[in-house]
Amino acid sequence: MEKQRLNRFEYIFHPRTAAVIGASESDGFSQALMGTKLRDNVFFVNPKYKELHGKKCYASILDIETEIDYVIIAVPAQHVPSVLSECIKKGVKTVHIFTAGFSETGIEERKALEDQIREMARGKVNLIGPNCMGICCPKSGLAFIPDVLVEEGPVGVISQSGTFAEQFLSIGKLRNVRFSKVISYGNGIDLDCPDFLEYLAYDVGTKVIALYIEGTRDGKRLKAAMTEAARLKPVVALKGGVTEHGRRAASCHTGSLAGSPEIWSSFFRQAGVLQVEDFDELLDTSLALSCVLPPEGKGTAIITNSGGFSVLETDLCVKVGLEVPQFTKETMTELRKMVPVAGTSINNPLDAWPIYYNTPGTSGTLADAIKALSNDRNIHCIVLHFDEVRYLRHVFGEATEGFLKELVKIMIQGCKYARDEAGKAVVICVSLDAYSEDEEDRKYHLLVKKAFEREEFPVYPSLAACIKVLFNLYRYHRQRLMLI
Amino acid sequence: MEKQRLNRFEYIFHPRTAAVIGASESDGFSQALMGTKLRDNVFFVNPKYKELHGKKCYASILDIETEIDYVIIAVPAQHVPSVLSECIKKGVKTVHIFTAGFSETGIEERKALEDQIREMARGKVNLIGPNCMGICCPKSGLAFIPDVLVEEGPVGVISQSGTFAEQFLSIGKLRNVRFSKVISYGNGIDLDCPDFLEYLAYDVGTKVIALYIEGTRDGKRLKAAMTEAARLKPVVALKGGVTEHGRRAASCHTGSLAGSPEIWSSFFRQAGVLQVEDFDELLDTSLALSCVLPPEGKGTAIITNSGGFSVLETDLCVKVGLEVPQFTKETMTELRKMVPVAGTSINNPLDAWPIYYNTPGTSGTLADAIKALSNDRNIHCIVLHFDEVRYLRHVFGEATEGFLKELVKIMIQGCKYARDEAGKAVVICVSLDAYSEDEEDRKYHLLVKKAFEREEFPVYPSLAACIKVLFNLYRYHRQRLMLI
Repeated sequence: MEKQRLNRFEYIFHPRTAAVIGASESDGFSQALMGTKLRDNVFFVNPKYKELHGKKCYASILDIETEIDYVIIAVPAQHVPSVLSECIKKGVKTVHIFTAGFSETGIEERKALEDQIREMARGKVNLIGPNCMGICCPKSGLAFIPDVLVEEGPVGVISQSGTFAEQFLSIGKLRNVRFSKVISYGNGIDLDCPDFLEYLAYDVGTKVIALYIEGTRDGKRLKAAMTEAARLKPVVALKGGVTEHGRRAASCHTGSLAGSPEIWSSFFRQAGVLQVEDFDELLDTSLALSCVLPPEGKGTAIITNSGGFSVLETDLCVKVGLEVPQFTKETMTELRKMVPVAGTSINNPLDAWPIYYNTPGTSGTLADAIKALSNDRNIHCIVLHFDEVRYLRHVFGEATEGFLKELVKIMIQGCKYARDEAGKAVVICVSLDAYSEDEEDRKYHLLVKKAFEREEFPVYPSLAACIKVLFNLYRYHRQRLMLI
Repeated sequence: MEKQRLNRFEYIFHPRTAAVIGASESDGFSQALMGTKLRDNVFFVNPKYKELHGKKCYASILDIETEIDYVIIAVPAQHVPSVLSECIKKGVKTVHIFTAGFSETGIEERKALEDQIREMARGKVNLIGPNCMGICCPKSGLAFIPDVLVEEGPVGVISQSGTFAEQFLSIGKLRNVRFSKVISYGNGIDLDCPDFLEYLAYDVGTKVIALYIEGTRDGKRLKAAMTEAARLKPVVALKGGVTEHGRRAASCHTGSLAGSPEIWSSFFRQAGVLQVEDFDELLDTSLALSCVLPPEGKGTAIITNSGGFSVLETDLCVKVGLEVPQFTKETMTELRKMVPVAGTSINNPLDAWPIYYNTPGTSGTLADAIKALSNDRNIHCIVLHFDEVRYLRHVFGEATEGFLKELVKIMIQGCKYARDEAGKAVVICVSLDAYSEDEEDRKYHLLVKKAFEREEFPVYPSLAACIKVLFNLYRYHRQRLMLI
């Protein structure tokens, strides 16, 4: 990417001032921007108000005396042209049109309105949208929903869907995912997916790119941008509308023309982009690629505390494409020294619940077991499935929290060895049901989750998610090998 | 099933007295039984204690003067024979051996110990286990984990795995699943899966049977029992160990001999049993079969509030095997009267977020929209995906709870019409992330969930679960047709 273009984008993402046209007391943009470092340089425009969020509210953007770099338009579709022409007159650099109701409706006059806007903007202003959430950039303070992580991080998101961009931020916060930029580009009539891909490819803050796309107007350019980005960093993509009915829904949603699923799959494969199947997988895999070294093999060790689940967990791994090989004789001999016979298994999966109760200095802790199996030559990936809280509470009652904190230290010690010394890909499952109302139980599970997250392990609430992520990491490793 | 055998089982499941041998302050059986109506008729045996849970603790079962109908043995494996012989001497009717460490270890002397126990019990006592959790029966008070729903209900569970039986109870509580019996039979050396299937088939309190199985010693008898049960009520089955690695894990877990996955699949199909793929699907489908009329077609309507997700939701439906047909012209005309154009779609999926804000008496509520699409001749199934809380909170702030309660009434009104008047299969998705720590958000979601549950709608935390369940209901309908 030429330096000049990169600079142009830096300018778009890092405005000195921003204005919301169509601001109100309840609009999310105003609320969001007032919570970031841009706060003092945000202006509100709406003839209905004199004041908003403790600030003067202007009747028109033309009434603001300061230069405005970035405008968010949130007025009904029919008013967008007049508001846009005022922005151009004011000399605004970038306009994000949140408003929906253009080509995606499939209505002729709405398409014409979109064309009118495109023509107005051409050569005069950078346009994002319409029908999208725009840009979130923790570094500059641009934001579109309130109360999300403002800490900068390694994951850059490009999403045709606004809801997905929002979900990335809100679910991402719960998974400890931190973002460099989150971009929702909607109908993309000016700045489009390839523009943002080119930018994030060279953005030093972005280590992994997550992409949600429903269709494109220019497949050739998109492929070139994807290929270039994937050459420089991991790109994970989710294609919406891969079934006939889904394509119809996509055309209602962003007005996209969407090719056949087979075309898109080979498109991604040729570009070196890792295709995934749903939103959770996109988020989860992006997180893992930002903090886990992709494994060089499929051999997966499962550490669990349930015989019943160990069987299904194994089935699940194999169905996804991983392997759950038996441990070597050496590993099993090592494990048998620590783990009693009854109700356990030292085959893979390791079902070694009795040693969860061993503290350092005793005959073998969970850390010792994890170390032993992480040195196994057949093992490349490790899933630690932690679901012991219920049992610990039965045994320890009120002393549970104290014991749990010790146990967490032991588990982390083992997992750090596996990751940092043995070089294995380690992911953690902390099982927690969405509808659980046992507050004490939730507290203990979240305690374990956060402790692992502090050590930069990815943590997921279901084993299925862990296994999918590990397989995707392995696929990424394979794909890189084939491209080199 | 002969009346005599049925009576024998009634006796096993409804003991007048129960004893725990190897009881302690922290063992789950004692805690569980002390929380049920059996409380006053529970006895504890352990020479280490004089008193437990506020009751006298006996050194031996022979010291108890009362007749004992049901005994739980929780002592180390090598002590089981002597304890069992005391039970036989005492004239106990049913013995559940919780203790693990028998044939499932693969160790010869442990297999011999299991054989010894089988021989001791033959003709003298009904044996459940070893290596299992035994029986939970809300009606009699038998229980194996504390703090679970004691309300009786329509779902009967038979599980080779103890953890699964526990999970059924604990996750089932969160999903509003109520149970007639939950049975964990482990190594099944006396009473085995076919025995329990025969019993639940004729048990009037059981409307749906959920089965988790890893293998069997007598395929012919199992198939006969399954066929008979499936003739009388829905039977949903999950086979653990369907992959080669999974079979190895299963043999470590319950010592089962497990046939090839293809053999098992045709086995289930021929018996009229609905096979599922994982634990959640087993629980979720059993719940749905207990309260939703299986749909006669695959046409699915999705009601959502997100364009981005509507595309993926459609893809997901079609990948699973359902269809998301366009609504008829009549339905769309009807919907267009209510739903404004911008940012919505009245194609299927219905993405009609603006009308979430319409209250009764206005131009059309969400109930009106649901009614309109439920009369569509192409639609057999309906998923209502409720994920509007975030937006409601932005708009209503502290007034959210009041508005939400009104909205819930409106949604329920529409869904009841769809289910009770239009005869469609309706399931509800109330999206909630397991790791969410926004307590207000959780409160609102749980409010919606419980309101639907009070009206006997099944509610799931993910859309993927809803879709899987609907497809399984449809499969069940097809399977019934083929058997008739």
